[in-house]
Amino acid sequence: MAVTDAEREAMGRALELASRGPRGLNPQVGAVLLSPTGEILAEGWHRGSGTPHAEVDALSRLTPGQARGATAVVTLEPCDHTGRTGPCSLALIAAGVSRVVYALDDPGERSGGGAERLRAADIEVVSGVRADAVRALIGDWLTVQRLGRPHVTVKWAQSLDGRAAASDGTSRWITGPAARADVHRRRSASDAIVVGTGTILADDPSLTARDGDRLLSHQPTPVVIGARPTPPDAAVRRHPHAPLFYDTHDLGVVLADLRARGVQRVFVEGGPTLAAAFLTAGLADSVLVYIAPVLLGGDRLALTDIGVETIARAHRLTIDEWLPLGDDLLAVAHPSGLEEGD
Amino acid sequence: MAVTDAEREAMGRALELASRGPRGLNPQVGAVLLSPTGEILAEGWHRGSGTPHAEVDALSRLTPGQARGATAVVTLEPCDHTGRTGPCSLALIAAGVSRVVYALDDPGERSGGGAERLRAADIEVVSGVRADAVRALIGDWLTVQRLGRPHVTVKWAQSLDGRAAASDGTSRWITGPAARADVHRRRSASDAIVVGTGTILADDPSLTARDGDRLLSHQPTPVVIGARPTPPDAAVRRHPHAPLFYDTHDLGVVLADLRARGVQRVFVEGGPTLAAAFLTAGLADSVLVYIAPVLLGGDRLALTDIGVETIARAHRLTIDEWLPLGDDLLAVAHPSGLEEGD
Ligand SMILES: NC(=O)c1ccc[n+]([C@@H]2O[C@H](COP(=O)([O-])OP(=O)(O)OC[C@H]3O[C@@H](n4cnc5c(N)ncnc54)[C@H](OP(=O)(O)O)[C@@H]3O)[C@@H](O)[C@H]2O)c1
Ligand SMILES: NC(=O)c1ccc[n+]([C@@H]2O[C@H](COP(=O)([O-])OP(=O)(O)OC[C@H]3O[C@@H](n4cnc5c(N)ncnc54)[C@H](OP(=O)(O)O)[C@@H]3O)[C@@H](O)[C@H]2O)c1
Repeated sequence: MAVTDAEREAMGRALELASRGPRGLNPQVGAVLLSPTGEILAEGWHRGSGTPHAEVDALSRLTPGQARGATAVVTLEPCDHTGRTGPCSLALIAAGVSRVVYALDDPGERSGGGAERLRAADIEVVSGVRADAVRALIGDWLTVQRLGRPHVTVKWAQSLDGRAAASDGTSRWITGPAARADVHRRRSASDAIVVGTGTILADDPSLTARDGDRLLSHQPTPVVIGARPTPPDAAVRRHPHAPLFYDTHDLGVVLADLRARGVQRVFVEGGPTLAAAFLTAGLADSVLVYIAPVLLGGDRLALTDIGVETIARAHRLTIDEWLPLGDDLLAVAHPSGLEEGD
Repeated sequence: MAVTDAEREAMGRALELASRGPRGLNPQVGAVLLSPTGEILAEGWHRGSGTPHAEVDALSRLTPGQARGATAVVTLEPCDHTGRTGPCSLALIAAGVSRVVYALDDPGERSGGGAERLRAADIEVVSGVRADAVRALIGDWLTVQRLGRPHVTVKWAQSLDGRAAASDGTSRWITGPAARADVHRRRSASDAIVVGTGTILADDPSLTARDGDRLLSHQPTPVVIGARPTPPDAAVRRHPHAPLFYDTHDLGVVLADLRARGVQRVFVEGGPTLAAAFLTAGLADSVLVYIAPVLLGGDRLALTDIGVETIARAHRLTIDEWLPLGDDLLAVAHPSGLEEGD
């Protein structure tokens, strides 16, 4: 079924509306209702958990009967699931909408099936319209649905020979300014930044995303994993977001809780023990290794044991990119056999 | 002073003649004698230690008096040193040559000064003619003169996290075919390939330079350093060149002996202890690290301690090239502060 220019344009508007909603547990969704002649009747978007879905938000702006024969343009397939709000599929049917145009299928097992229900009610349904643009907005949310947990990037910096520090523990700065700036940009693109208690106690990091001294606009929530307490005067306690502390070594539990809090992307910044734990557990979707052109030798390894007993069981990576950053090199990789990390 | 076309052409011929001589303790040198009208009177080249120098070889092909007024075109400044052969400067003066054109200055403290002596005898002297082409042939020899020892490349292969093997010691193959082929090509461009006894005992390597199963035409001499004996049935004993064994840890002594044997380029292929020893001693002019996209963790380090106590004393490298080889990456580097390694 052909899509009209007005519908394509309305999808662009719906995407804009979607992006006003909060990133988090629910997807960002926008909707536009068009009259049979292509005029905008109403707009809506989803404002987060427990609030109306985008279609229902738009419908609520119309007088009864006003949506009859209208076309609903929505960024995500209307849901077919009774949660805190009723199924959007039924709301659209009840309002007398005659056509629904959407971008992406709802990947949810419980929420999917809206398109089918609409078709069964003799409503025209077209999907895939401007799908790429919508995927760019809610790709992380889709990834969470696919993985069943937040996406995890494990990052560390090392000397060429795989050390994190010199014998006395000094490591500032192994990598140069371009590599450090890259780390801060990537921190800022994450929802949570995770370290082990070992790193807190050794380095007292602030875990903010900065450009020089300036805080970047988006700050990930700092997360500390491990039994040892974080000192009351630790720098992380002055982070713009209150840190989360997990007194457990069960990374699955941590990720499930982070997901429930709406975290979609996790950036694991060490140290060596925690990085190894994520890798060993198969919980690293993406691996970033910043390699500085120095040799250190000694026993301060950037990554500890990951249980590889024999070479056939090596943790193989696929390199997405070898990215030079000043004098340093960034290996952007993901475990071979998985889809691309990002 | 202008150089004639005939002289430039003669320099090309002299270079060709030079390349017939053996690579080794002495430089490869070629000489052409031109008549005043630019015809070739005689040619000569140096056939190695204890044989006549190129100029003398060329002069020896003429009848007495025939060189009077001739121009000598030589790839290297005529020597001014009485060794096993007399100084070439004096031989040219005695023969009545009126002009000398050469490419590169003789860097030797004892052998240099030939140009000066020729000028003092009222002979026209022009230097620097086709210097780059000649440097391409005898660059390694010049490097040996500059360093006072052979040029040393330290090479190893590692996982991204700096391991040489899995916990059980297995390591075949960390890197892929493109990286291994690159290693063999670089072996073949060396005069000696050096390993520690640890590698001999653990891996029993053949230390040949191969293309698949085929031996490459130039084979470096295998060298084993360390006190432990190499087993009588070790593969290295079947190498086309008889291996050299050094029962010492003094790398300076080893390099001096190799130099005396005409070795110009040494390729150190490990293991971790020997690589670390060369780096710690400041005897690595070039460092090659083949990085495979795998993580291994564990304690089989590709490089052991190199005495870096604090980060300010890190062994800084300058990367000449990050070279992708199949799925692997080769870091071609040299210690910062040194001239480029190769
Ligand atoms: N090169 C880099 O990029 C980088 C980055 C960060 C840190 N570092 C360096 O790393 C050093 C600290 O190393 P580290 O290994 O102690 O730091 P770490 O990995 O941050 O902390 C390790 C601690 O995390 C806790 N933990 C939480 N979950 C765990 C699990 N699943 N398995 C095991 N432990 C878990 C344990 O502490 P509890 O006993 O408290 O439970 C463990 O001792 C510092 O010197 C720091 O400078 C380097
Ligand atoms: N990743 C790679 O590229 C690579 C390359 C080669 C080997 N390997 C692996 O490395 C392992 C062997 O390790 P390794 O460290 O024992 O091998 P190694 O470095 O080849 O041998 C070390 C031995 O060399 C001798 N040696 C000579 N000069 C020395 C000096 N200046 N300082 C200290 N020792 C000196 C000592 O033996 P004596 O006691 O006999 O004097 C020392 O124990 C094997 O598992 C092998 O597979 C990896």
